[in-house]
Amino acid sequence: MSSTPSRRSLNIDNINPHVKAAQYAVRGELAIKSEEYRHKLRYTDPPTPPEEPLPFDSVISANIGNPQQLDQQPITFFREVLALVEHPKLLENEEALKTHFGYKQDAINRARWLLKEVGSVGAYSQSMGAPGIRQSVANFIEQRDGFPAEKNDIYLTAGASSGVHSLLTVLCASPSTGVMIPIPQYPLYTATLALHDARAVPYYLDEQHGWDTNMAVIRESYEKAVAEGTDVRAIVVINPGNPTGASLSEWDVEDVIKFAAEKNLVIFADEVYQTNVFIGKFHSFKRALRILQQKEPGLYDHVELASLNSVSKGMVGECGHRAGYFELVGWDQEVQAQIYKLISIMLCPPVIGQCLLDLVVNPPKKGDPSFHQYHEEYHAIKHGLQQRATALYDAFERMEGVEVGEPQGSMYLFPTVRLPEKAIQAAKDAGKNPDDFYCLRLLDATGICVVPGSGFGQKPGTLHFRTTFLAPGTDWITRWTKFHHEFMDKYR
Amino acid sequence: MSSTPSRRSLNIDNINPHVKAAQYAVRGELAIKSEEYRHKLRYTDPPTPPEEPLPFDSVISANIGNPQQLDQQPITFFREVLALVEHPKLLENEEALKTHFGYKQDAINRARWLLKEVGSVGAYSQSMGAPGIRQSVANFIEQRDGFPAEKNDIYLTAGASSGVHSLLTVLCASPSTGVMIPIPQYPLYTATLALHDARAVPYYLDEQHGWDTNMAVIRESYEKAVAEGTDVRAIVVINPGNPTGASLSEWDVEDVIKFAAEKNLVIFADEVYQTNVFIGKFHSFKRALRILQQKEPGLYDHVELASLNSVSKGMVGECGHRAGYFELVGWDQEVQAQIYKLISIMLCPPVIGQCLLDLVVNPPKKGDPSFHQYHEEYHAIKHGLQQRATALYDAFERMEGVEVGEPQGSMYLFPTVRLPEKAIQAAKDAGKNPDDFYCLRLLDATGICVVPGSGFGQKPGTLHFRTTFLAPGTDWITRWTKFHHEFMDKYR
Repeated sequence: MSSTPSRRSLNIDNINPHVKAAQYAVRGELAIKSEEYRHKLRYTDPPTPPEEPLPFDSVISANIGNPQQLDQQPITFFREVLALVEHPKLLENEEALKTHFGYKQDAINRARWLLKEVGSVGAYSQSMGAPGIRQSVANFIEQRDGFPAEKNDIYLTAGASSGVHSLLTVLCASPSTGVMIPIPQYPLYTATLALHDARAVPYYLDEQHGWDTNMAVIRESYEKAVAEGTDVRAIVVINPGNPTGASLSEWDVEDVIKFAAEKNLVIFADEVYQTNVFIGKFHSFKRALRILQQKEPGLYDHVELASLNSVSKGMVGECGHRAGYFELVGWDQEVQAQIYKLISIMLCPPVIGQCLLDLVVNPPKKGDPSFHQYHEEYHAIKHGLQQRATALYDAFERMEGVEVGEPQGSMYLFPTVRLPEKAIQAAKDAGKNPDDFYCLRLLDATGICVVPGSGFGQKPGTLHFRTTFLAPGTDWITRWTKFHHEFMDKYR
Repeated sequence: MSSTPSRRSLNIDNINPHVKAAQYAVRGELAIKSEEYRHKLRYTDPPTPPEEPLPFDSVISANIGNPQQLDQQPITFFREVLALVEHPKLLENEEALKTHFGYKQDAINRARWLLKEVGSVGAYSQSMGAPGIRQSVANFIEQRDGFPAEKNDIYLTAGASSGVHSLLTVLCASPSTGVMIPIPQYPLYTATLALHDARAVPYYLDEQHGWDTNMAVIRESYEKAVAEGTDVRAIVVINPGNPTGASLSEWDVEDVIKFAAEKNLVIFADEVYQTNVFIGKFHSFKRALRILQQKEPGLYDHVELASLNSVSKGMVGECGHRAGYFELVGWDQEVQAQIYKLISIMLCPPVIGQCLLDLVVNPPKKGDPSFHQYHEEYHAIKHGLQQRATALYDAFERMEGVEVGEPQGSMYLFPTVRLPEKAIQAAKDAGKNPDDFYCLRLLDATGICVVPGSGFGQKPGTLHFRTTFLAPGTDWITRWTKFHHEFMDKYR
């Protein structure tokens, strides 16, 4: 029963204008259309006349880093333990678990420990997360960085996105609040700032130098914002980069910290891809900050850092479990009390996700019964990702007008594409940005869904798209190559 | 390493003032203190001198509806299935599941069906939730109400709280936006309005008549708000009530709908306690609206309803899984598109929680192999809750100065307490509200944590507290009775 529009309370012209202003292309028009195609392929076989069959037989969701949708298998040890904490009665017959289902003693022991820590995964935990699991996260950070971490500065979350949302909610005090955001960026940041009616202060990453941070550009952007009356309070760095795939050097990280110290900016280090590094190694902001604090006592003690991590990425890929954490370094205690209150309104992050986080930060060690299988699975996934990244990179290298740097990290490639004038005109005629137009045509012709560069931000006059390299096989890459060739021919 | 306060970017005086303004007592000072006591009891045995031992040996968290923290066992069928969807390799040996772990065929079949619907619980689902599970919810609503429900108007959430947050985010357009809130209320509502810098328009529930809605009071509150320039857009009804435990009659529900239709208000029906009804039966807003629409065609077609439900309450009590849904009835399609965009920024609700929701709305039916056990467990929990409610009610009836109505529904009792003048003076001297003071003393003396009425709102000059009746046994009720007696004696 449809309601009478004229008498409704809410309509598009009177709802929260900041919601309307927020942009989030990762799940936008293209993603919705790709879901419709997926549905059509699944439920109408053969299609009802006069409907034409689709020109492809599968949808490839390369628009979002969702490994297990694309057939990445979960890591066995993690899921073995999660099944036990979901259904503790299974623990009443350890022998049968071992004999019939291949369980090892360490999986069983870990499940018992987790149940002791959380009671039941059906009970609310503390709003910051179960203390024992926060301690596991602290231990992980200590081992990673070689510097102490404190469990009471660690907040478990329902994925990194929810952490970003909470922290920006506290930070955004007025419409003149500004946060420096890399461009291109994962659009969570600009969307969240739009929701809070605050200002994104964009700084361009350096495409010519592997999408590195460029301090001159950052400085210039900062000065410009301040001159315009923006109260710049924080700088976001995504490392390894999304959508760029860049992995920052130790010096890049240090330079950002020095700049933040000089300007009193909070650093948001989005480090969810910290294990997805193919070239060189990951350099955490926490470690770099502690080293600077040791080297030059007093100069960096006032720096406030929030470092975010997630179980959705890495070789784990457990997006659907919605789990992650952030660590606060150097934050005011009264501000932390307000963060606690804010997150307590939403009660707590999913408890089974907290258990999964514990497994991710403290996986089987050498000598543990489950270590061998864990190690094999982990490295097979890592190897597979790197292989697919390379295959896709090679295909782009051969495509006319497409340019992309060698894959360094994260789950994405973000190529530049130069389209013929006629294609740009055709996009204009269709009322689309040229990159939107290209991606829409790609989806319609091949079932491959990627995100146009406009969804992340790009220098005016340039065109990009972001694709994950998660989809298995190379068939889809062949489909894409063929499409690209035909597209370029058509509009040449 | 502490940072230098004067040079930090963020401090209590410059963060988002709306976060500071938000109040949420359910997890406030008392809850934090109770956790400290729990920690002390667990880790310091015996206490280090010169510390005194605590005068109680367990903490009773009666401040929050968290059944599984208080030893309520999860329903076996639900957890059997969840273990299988977490670890699908278990399905490779159905025989062993049946022989060694008591699995029945319907649990196995359901797990296979869920895995087909979601792919992997480690994959992001659609932002509104998996379509097959939304269809299950639609079927449940149809059966409950006898009127059709549409899966595309159903949004799965990470618990009802996150649904309320999303909907209020869209609705709150300016500082003059107003939402009518029952007093006393679950403080999620006022806290969320404070975060959005919108106005709570309070209407008092009628304590003399079992905490019913009183239309004269609602009308008066509405008129007053409008006269003050408030753009009143919605009315929240919590039925069965939190914290009051009231269960509304069909006529009460109809009256609210008629009022909302007259004033063009969106109805937020918080119906998370819909199965927790001891007296009479639950009357859903959706059904009442459809009946009114049938009876008087045209008069109610413009009504916008949002009905919220959750797996945290009922006999399910799976709070830690953070799952629920809301159904929108009569909302504008463009507004729904904005809601979709908003929730897509947070990607999706936890997928294992979505699976649990499917089980809750579609449990084993008569004739299914798992039905008998499910039915037994469900009714044992229901019976236990009712028994404990009655035991607590009887104890309050005997306490001096305490008055409370017969338990009708939800998980709470919300008694009035009249304290002696001296106690009120002692509270004043301690800088506390009298109800805060009483609850703090109760916690310090007995380990029982409840929430003062001030956390929910109460008529000036009255004092209340909210307690759940979830804690097992009667020992804690005896402790409380003894404390109350001594407290009254001390301050008489």
